[in-house]
Amino acid sequence: MAAQPTDSSALRAYLDDAKQTVETALDRLLPAEADGAPRLAEAVRYSVFAGGKRLRPALAFAAAEAVGGDRAVAVPFACALELVHTYSLIHDDLPAMDDDDLRRGRPTSHKVFGEAHAILAGDCLHTMAFGILLRETQDATLARALGVALADAAGFAGMVGGQVEDLAAEHGTPNAEQLYRIHRGKTAALIQAATRGGGLAGGADAATVDALGAYGLHLGLAFQLVDDVLDETGTAEALGKTPGKDRQDEKLTVVALEGLEAARERARQEVAAAIEAVAGLPHPERLVDLAHFVRERDR
Amino acid sequence: MAAQPTDSSALRAYLDDAKQTVETALDRLLPAEADGAPRLAEAVRYSVFAGGKRLRPALAFAAAEAVGGDRAVAVPFACALELVHTYSLIHDDLPAMDDDDLRRGRPTSHKVFGEAHAILAGDCLHTMAFGILLRETQDATLARALGVALADAAGFAGMVGGQVEDLAAEHGTPNAEQLYRIHRGKTAALIQAATRGGGLAGGADAATVDALGAYGLHLGLAFQLVDDVLDETGTAEALGKTPGKDRQDEKLTVVALEGLEAARERARQEVAAAIEAVAGLPHPERLVDLAHFVRERDR
Repeated sequence: MAAQPTDSSALRAYLDDAKQTVETALDRLLPAEADGAPRLAEAVRYSVFAGGKRLRPALAFAAAEAVGGDRAVAVPFACALELVHTYSLIHDDLPAMDDDDLRRGRPTSHKVFGEAHAILAGDCLHTMAFGILLRETQDATLARALGVALADAAGFAGMVGGQVEDLAAEHGTPNAEQLYRIHRGKTAALIQAATRGGGLAGGADAATVDALGAYGLHLGLAFQLVDDVLDETGTAEALGKTPGKDRQDEKLTVVALEGLEAARERARQEVAAAIEAVAGLPHPERLVDLAHFVRERDR
Repeated sequence: MAAQPTDSSALRAYLDDAKQTVETALDRLLPAEADGAPRLAEAVRYSVFAGGKRLRPALAFAAAEAVGGDRAVAVPFACALELVHTYSLIHDDLPAMDDDDLRRGRPTSHKVFGEAHAILAGDCLHTMAFGILLRETQDATLARALGVALADAAGFAGMVGGQVEDLAAEHGTPNAEQLYRIHRGKTAALIQAATRGGGLAGGADAATVDALGAYGLHLGLAFQLVDDVLDETGTAEALGKTPGKDRQDEKLTVVALEGLEAARERARQEVAAAIEAVAGLPHPERLVDLAHFVRERDR
């Protein structure tokens, strides 16, 4: 990967710090095997602590800090984002869905715990996302606003809707408009919620929250474009999952529709639009760095 | 069934009214096919409007009214209870779980829409439960308290935990303590949340909310005991699902452990304990009627 124009070691430290903050909180908040239902606790922790980058929490923190807020207020929300993301990965990997054996370099949940436990571990994480967000966020009005933002992003008009459209598009005729809706739903909605929610937690006004939402939407679209490129060009070792799976499943991707170079160019455009959206904020630096990171990531 | 000592036609009218209230709200709040993702909207509505009794909403309303509150405040919560209940039925029926073909007299979701859509319809209902509850409950502090109660009941220490323990107990050695934990988790926790939440929505103080919770816990245990009895004695026509399924799956039930009569006697005891718990409330009449209804139901 090309070196970053900004200080990439500072960004690496920022990501590591965000990861540690959210993982410390999750370790405290998630059930342990001694809490009963040890196999469920084990399955929950297996998937949550599987070495994810914690990009959504980092984006929520960076959004809160971009408006002069305190990341501590956003920690329960960051945990909830990661739990929703993790539940969706477990369910996506199921045999009835994408039927994946490998995730983040390890066997998928249903390969280790069986399908029934994988379904239930996903359901448990899904419930806990809302439970933790609502219980741990001090201010009730903020807790409610963040819960609504999370539900909107994860539900019918967001992630789940995008998954359904993704399934429907397999083996179908490529269609750019449908592809945009799929990317927006299955990937960008939750990333958009991360930055909007970070702004809410940081005390931003409505216009600023909208600007952060625009950043998240563009960045989420870029993220999915890069994902589609990496599925073509990446190795199993770097990706931690099986590459070439999209093509094999006849998934509708920008790569299939327009080719690798067009997908890379679109990702560049989305990243530029994301950066433009937050240019006027008090402290946009980390959001800018994270946008470059999303475009240049190799896994 | 034996006639009720209380006026059973009044209770029937109460249940019908509660059902209509919650179904009118759900019809307004759930996505329609015109909202995009038509197959997902169809799957969501297929399971939500499948002719359920809406017992949990009725219990939430009766709890609010037992403390002199207004059921209108509890409507979003009642919708959320029904959505969580419905998502859990869809996932329970999946081939990897109980593998049921029939639910409420109709083919199960995965039989009609396929496994992938059934998983996603369940996930969508699960998210919408929290979204609707948080968005539609006017008071943020109440919304948060109800969301926490719902998450506690549905998650690791409640419904999902009970399901996992239920799966683990199949083909195992019967154990009365384990059986109690299964019933409490997979069934009673959500019914307990219904009555606690109804009390919260009705403005009850903490001790009264606890009394309503004790009622719900006992009633939920009775409900599951009756369910186990009906699985042995009921017909497919009355139940709307395949009877004898528990025995076939070697499920751990009180019927298997202690026999039909002992299960019926335990249900009577739990109903009596439920009624006792709310005897001191201002208006316990409907809760008393509903407790008798749970014991005497035949489907």
